[in-house]
Amino acid sequence: MLVDGVHRRTIWTEPDDPGTVHLIDQRALPFSFETVRVTSATQMAATISDMVVRGAGLIGVAAAYGMALAARSAADDRGDAATTLQAAAARLEASRPTAVNLTWAVDRMLRTLDGIDPGDLVATADAETEAIVAEDVAACQAIGRHGLPLIEEIHECTGRPVNVMTHCNAGWLAFVDHGSATAPIYTAHDAGIPVHVWVDETRPRNQGARLTAWELGQHGVPHSVVVDNAGGHLMQHGLVDLVLVGSDRTTATGDVANKIGTYLKALAAHDNDVPFHVALPSSSIDWSARAGRREIVIEERDPTEVTHIDGVVETGSGPAVPAQVRLVPEGTIAVNHGFDVTPARLVTGLVTERGRCPADESGLLGLYPEHRRG
Amino acid sequence: MLVDGVHRRTIWTEPDDPGTVHLIDQRALPFSFETVRVTSATQMAATISDMVVRGAGLIGVAAAYGMALAARSAADDRGDAATTLQAAAARLEASRPTAVNLTWAVDRMLRTLDGIDPGDLVATADAETEAIVAEDVAACQAIGRHGLPLIEEIHECTGRPVNVMTHCNAGWLAFVDHGSATAPIYTAHDAGIPVHVWVDETRPRNQGARLTAWELGQHGVPHSVVVDNAGGHLMQHGLVDLVLVGSDRTTATGDVANKIGTYLKALAAHDNDVPFHVALPSSSIDWSARAGRREIVIEERDPTEVTHIDGVVETGSGPAVPAQVRLVPEGTIAVNHGFDVTPARLVTGLVTERGRCPADESGLLGLYPEHRRG
Repeated sequence: MLVDGVHRRTIWTEPDDPGTVHLIDQRALPFSFETVRVTSATQMAATISDMVVRGAGLIGVAAAYGMALAARSAADDRGDAATTLQAAAARLEASRPTAVNLTWAVDRMLRTLDGIDPGDLVATADAETEAIVAEDVAACQAIGRHGLPLIEEIHECTGRPVNVMTHCNAGWLAFVDHGSATAPIYTAHDAGIPVHVWVDETRPRNQGARLTAWELGQHGVPHSVVVDNAGGHLMQHGLVDLVLVGSDRTTATGDVANKIGTYLKALAAHDNDVPFHVALPSSSIDWSARAGRREIVIEERDPTEVTHIDGVVETGSGPAVPAQVRLVPEGTIAVNHGFDVTPARLVTGLVTERGRCPADESGLLGLYPEHRRG
Repeated sequence: MLVDGVHRRTIWTEPDDPGTVHLIDQRALPFSFETVRVTSATQMAATISDMVVRGAGLIGVAAAYGMALAARSAADDRGDAATTLQAAAARLEASRPTAVNLTWAVDRMLRTLDGIDPGDLVATADAETEAIVAEDVAACQAIGRHGLPLIEEIHECTGRPVNVMTHCNAGWLAFVDHGSATAPIYTAHDAGIPVHVWVDETRPRNQGARLTAWELGQHGVPHSVVVDNAGGHLMQHGLVDLVLVGSDRTTATGDVANKIGTYLKALAAHDNDVPFHVALPSSSIDWSARAGRREIVIEERDPTEVTHIDGVVETGSGPAVPAQVRLVPEGTIAVNHGFDVTPARLVTGLVTERGRCPADESGLLGLYPEHRRG
């Protein structure tokens, strides 16, 4: 999507510099736009673990690029290619142990490179990486097309800008381009349908206030940041037409694990008859899980994400200076669960790269019949 | 309640210094404990408008003290006492225009002082102020007694510490002492019943993370700060036994206007069969309002409360330094509604100074029969 009027992706290579991967440094956003260069799988693993890149789709793609860089080392290091690739895979998989797409991408690269002649390693790895990138982009674009009618129909009915609420960042910064929850928004905006987005700030890490607000602003989509507490009030007063969020993991029965607080918005949407849709590429469906709240283990993260926050101090004349402030009394205990599970009964529908379906097993199997058992 | 092991109130006078009112400076909390001295009604109005003091009960009491200081000027300024008192009343009422208790306290002081001989003004004003203070303290203590069984019964049933969730600060810092939502918690804790409080940080002004965490910590009540997004997840997993919040305004039919986000917690409590109780002195009941969501106008506050946040920068060796950081991309629009309305159907019960009742008209009129019409 657009950054300073130029089309950008979150991760890319340049034709004249084949051994280097470029990434947007998401830690610096929204306060400065910086890119980093990565030339080895070890560097890529650090890039993932340091959260230079984050977001389900993007982590998988970054890991694939990491394996392509490992393939270069393996090709140089004739005779020991398998060991080099396995070591890189282990490092990359350990960089964010809970990310589903990371393991998926690394395993796919390992399978593709297994038994390949050292002379063909680099070309094979590059081709598979490009395939993964192209699939990520295509899935997000398809989600945009399939989700567009949700926005279009409201606009046709009301004749005014459509108010969409989103939580966290399921934007293009979480993928290669377009995003999942944001894809229908960008598609509608680019088609000239007026959209206004309520951006939940998404404590504790504020991915909404930092990343979603930034990417919508750069692409010119009207939006307002609100605290996570505001959604219920806005829905009670008819100020939200549609809630559209992403998903970190969706069970085969349609339960949705997503950023903590998503469940509260789903409850408010249900109580106020506001449609609540979840956009997801099928790569994030966990076909083995059937009872989200019981089966999905919720990561408990560092409490300092709650007790401290990053921002910039405005100096008036000079540039704003990055700073971290403590928000609580010294020594205060905080607890920090990263995700919650929204039960399928609160989800109006799912938007996938193959189309929309109800949030239940028969809906998902209708779109993905290859997962029918027996 | 306790501060550094010493019993404190939020506002007080000292016998040897009768023309001075002392207050805890709540803007400095939790990072430093400071008190301010106020010697005129004009200063008191500034103290209220600058939010040195806040909280429904405390604002009313501070205004009463302001009128008592005005009575001193009026007594000195013989012949024009009524004008002096009226001017002070106007200044105090304008200091936080939406606070119900402020108008109530100023009007009560004006009525009491109307026609009083200048020689008796100070003594009459001091006596009425002390009466208002005593009523505030007594109401909070009574709420504590009436709310205690809610906690006690859960402990008797489970035999383990009772997990209470609260939102915002309906603590002693919002009154003179004890608080409303916190009164049953302090009463239980002081009676030896083990309690653990989940403290919602309460964006945007973080009264939970700043004030509730501080006062619970000072009084020795175990607690953990969580982001406002966390409550639904905690309730889904059985980690909340009881939600107990305050109320800025309660309608005659039991709808509850309280800090933005309260409604989301009520929805989650309802969805998970967690009791959701609202503690309130009857002074905050609006007997004329019957339909909360339609009749109660929700204050829209300064968006910089959302886009910027105050905290302290930890310097390592030296003392932490107060700082404000911006959280969003430069120029981002934010919207900041201060309150929401929780419909009575989601409220398990009300806890008042006269006892507990269902959140409906007959429940409230059972406790306050003097408000029956006709």
